[in-house]
Amino acid sequence: MAIADEIKIANGRFVECFRRRDAGGIAALYASGAKLLPPRSDFVLGEPSIRSFWQSVMDAGIEDAALETLELETHGDTTVEVGTYVMHAGGKVADRGKYIVIWKNEKGAWKLHRDMWNSSVAK
Amino acid sequence: MAIADEIKIANGRFVECFRRRDAGGIAALYASGAKLLPPRSDFVLGEPSIRSFWQSVMDAGIEDAALETLELETHGDTTVEVGTYVMHAGGKVADRGKYIVIWKNEKGAWKLHRDMWNSSVAK
Repeated sequence: MAIADEIKIANGRFVECFRRRDAGGIAALYASGAKLLPPRSDFVLGEPSIRSFWQSVMDAGIEDAALETLELETHGDTTVEVGTYVMHAGGKVADRGKYIVIWKNEKGAWKLHRDMWNSSVAK
Repeated sequence: MAIADEIKIANGRFVECFRRRDAGGIAALYASGAKLLPPRSDFVLGEPSIRSFWQSVMDAGIEDAALETLELETHGDTTVEVGTYVMHAGGKVADRGKYIVIWKNEKGAWKLHRDMWNSSVAK
């Protein structure tokens, strides 16, 4: 399968987990040693903290997410993705922004290794 | 020279330009086709827009910046950097956060290709 398709499937799983409020399922998409770089937060390290982070986002009312890949560049076991996201709460757009994900191929599966985003909405 | 040293020198130039309010000097550190991914803004593309962006940051009172590299990973002509920044205004910390820079080697020189950051300060 083309790497772009594999990344698309992984991003689809992320969104599916989000919709069914499965923070553990999201955390399982991350590589060992993964780090989140969320806005207004320090680095988030380790599976329990990554799971808690996404749980807190769901608890804050975010109930759906959409991801669009704009760029993918693969170097061996590493893929750099640049994309845009939209977060929904109460059926409305709660935030839209952009992200960079550094993916790592772990035992044949592409996993999120570094995950950074920020809002594109002006203050 | 080791790539880590070359990136350190490039980051040092970024900071020097900042201190002397040289937005054109900062813009010249970016690769052709570079994109900024700033918080609360859409993508910023092209040398004139990148220069204007950094000029506006300086005009907003940011007068010094410090960059610390935490991770560097090179794949051919591409280096992924993860680091932290501190921005100063009026002699005080105005913001501190983290960044991912995707560097590209252009004709032997490492240039910023994708530059994303966000604040680590809680709202």
